[in-house]
Amino acid sequence: MDKGCRYRGSRDRCCQSLFTSKGKTSSRQALKNYYTPHFGRDLDIEKEILITSGANEGQYSVFVAFLEQGDEVIMFEPFFDQYLPSVTFNGGKPVYVPLHPKLSADKISSDDWKIDFDELRRAITPRSKMIIINTPHNPVGKVFTRKELESIAALAEEFNLLVMCDEVYETLVYDKKEHVRFATLPGMWDRTVTVGSAGKMFAATGWRVGWLIGPESIIKPTLAATTRIVFCSNSPLQEAAAAGIEEANDRKFFVNQLSEYQERRDILTACFDKLGLSYTHPEGTYFILLDISTVTWPDNYPFPESVEGRGRDFKACWFIAMEIGVSSIPVSEFYCEEHVSIGERYARFAFCKDVDTLKHAAQRLAGLSKHLARS
Amino acid sequence: MDKGCRYRGSRDRCCQSLFTSKGKTSSRQALKNYYTPHFGRDLDIEKEILITSGANEGQYSVFVAFLEQGDEVIMFEPFFDQYLPSVTFNGGKPVYVPLHPKLSADKISSDDWKIDFDELRRAITPRSKMIIINTPHNPVGKVFTRKELESIAALAEEFNLLVMCDEVYETLVYDKKEHVRFATLPGMWDRTVTVGSAGKMFAATGWRVGWLIGPESIIKPTLAATTRIVFCSNSPLQEAAAAGIEEANDRKFFVNQLSEYQERRDILTACFDKLGLSYTHPEGTYFILLDISTVTWPDNYPFPESVEGRGRDFKACWFIAMEIGVSSIPVSEFYCEEHVSIGERYARFAFCKDVDTLKHAAQRLAGLSKHLARS
Repeated sequence: MDKGCRYRGSRDRCCQSLFTSKGKTSSRQALKNYYTPHFGRDLDIEKEILITSGANEGQYSVFVAFLEQGDEVIMFEPFFDQYLPSVTFNGGKPVYVPLHPKLSADKISSDDWKIDFDELRRAITPRSKMIIINTPHNPVGKVFTRKELESIAALAEEFNLLVMCDEVYETLVYDKKEHVRFATLPGMWDRTVTVGSAGKMFAATGWRVGWLIGPESIIKPTLAATTRIVFCSNSPLQEAAAAGIEEANDRKFFVNQLSEYQERRDILTACFDKLGLSYTHPEGTYFILLDISTVTWPDNYPFPESVEGRGRDFKACWFIAMEIGVSSIPVSEFYCEEHVSIGERYARFAFCKDVDTLKHAAQRLAGLSKHLARS
Repeated sequence: MDKGCRYRGSRDRCCQSLFTSKGKTSSRQALKNYYTPHFGRDLDIEKEILITSGANEGQYSVFVAFLEQGDEVIMFEPFFDQYLPSVTFNGGKPVYVPLHPKLSADKISSDDWKIDFDELRRAITPRSKMIIINTPHNPVGKVFTRKELESIAALAEEFNLLVMCDEVYETLVYDKKEHVRFATLPGMWDRTVTVGSAGKMFAATGWRVGWLIGPESIIKPTLAATTRIVFCSNSPLQEAAAAGIEEANDRKFFVNQLSEYQERRDILTACFDKLGLSYTHPEGTYFILLDISTVTWPDNYPFPESVEGRGRDFKACWFIAMEIGVSSIPVSEFYCEEHVSIGERYARFAFCKDVDTLKHAAQRLAGLSKHLARS
């Protein structure tokens, strides 16, 4: 499993460079101070925290360290699009388990997207190595409940699965919903790596600073992998991120940021409410899934070749971008071929924009009323 | 070959994200302006320049993009230690061709390390996919001559090899030696990717900014790979690197830096001369290979377990570190098992330290005189 160990010899230099590659001691200390209460354990900065070149590279390194050819990785659909190539580049086989939305003409909550646990159990095979959980969830905005996570934990235990819990939107949970960290469930620490991101925490995605928190059994092989892939995370911006984390609580940064995002969310949802459109009210993240099944366009509308043969949502998003002037992401993109029909009902709108931009977008989106099929 | 294309669907988003992942337009423009005269061609910033998360990650991405299981990659020994795991992690098989030093009791030049071209030809098989050249060379300090590169080029052409030319020490070439870029040899542009590094250029290795320059046929698949591995290089430091590159020539930065490194080199070489030790006078980089074959130690010297069973150089470096107080790298570390006997004659000393530190080191190294076997 530990491909780092395949490196011929050089134990000493390896240890020496791995020391640097973990991230700066002061930065890991800042993460420890911040996260220790969240995880309810005294995190070991030498063995349990690894700073990576963005959350993405951290996840990639986990796959490099642990996946053997043909190992299966379970991911819930819709899934963050980088998971798929990160798994397949390392010989893994993605196995998809869809979240099932409540179909409704009214708005629903992101909590109305449910796991069918029988379906999840059926997806597990003797080749299952890992399961990816993403909470808060991109693009649904779902914040997994303790009960849901406990049910996943029971399966992880029964089938001895590694768990990658991608919590990069951890500071964007609205309406006092509880964000449960999977690694804090009984018995789960030892099999779970939690993924965090300075980019998402501080709206600084261009910094490329992320981290992994987990047991030594996961962090150590992953450190060996990341050392070979990028050697280490850039030094100035990991210090900047650490400075932010150190001061965030005293300055109420996350509390204030959350209320700003809530204001932004409400601009878009008010606009969708006015249009009478169904959408998924997000409990977390900065995404809203709009139900675009009632959006219509002329039969002879000139779509480009690139959207032909894709889900209906590709046409809808193209049409809305061209005619309304607001861009969104077709959600079937986050599904495997087999489950495109679930995703093509939705377009993902992001509200990580300033208030003025969002108000302009809402004004433009009002124009959608002309293009809706009314029941 | 192009694993990026294995990614199911998503042509549009892929293109969109690849646009970002190339690096900032202004940064690529700065690289184009700097390198266009060096390569003697009008570089296309959209297709021929890719900014990566350090040179290391750029090289790793090339291997991800091009290596299939069992593909052979030829590298000259001694080799930069990251090449080996970067190749093997991606299913490649390293094939080693040693540089042969002139054995001498006097100092030699890094140009006295020679390729045996019959040996190189014999190393090529039907599975040979790529050859790695590193000029100026770490750890030898060799700057490959035009004639040597032309001989490699002839073989690359005959056997249709991709060429990775690692030129991260390009601004550290002493004594007016000509640094020839492999990609500028006739016919070589189309099969060569050149690797550069802001870290090495500006003594800022913690920034993790590097770049690849080459034809679209190499850059495009590598872009697909790097997009999945790290998504993109960090934005603030690639801008800083670009600003440096834009101003470097006007401020004579590289000229001044070179003379500073030359002064540092001369502190160490004067010390070795005084000791009457043989070493390799480097034409480039900031490394000196010291011939430690005459360094002796007591039979009962207490070496740690970690150096037992390694080359004689491991013991010498340990002994020098403990007794003299100057650390160096055992050079057999840069060789495969079969060729350890070539490398174990040398220790690598780095002079990328300030003048005072180097003067202190030279004072300490004078103490080596007590531990030399005299012929």
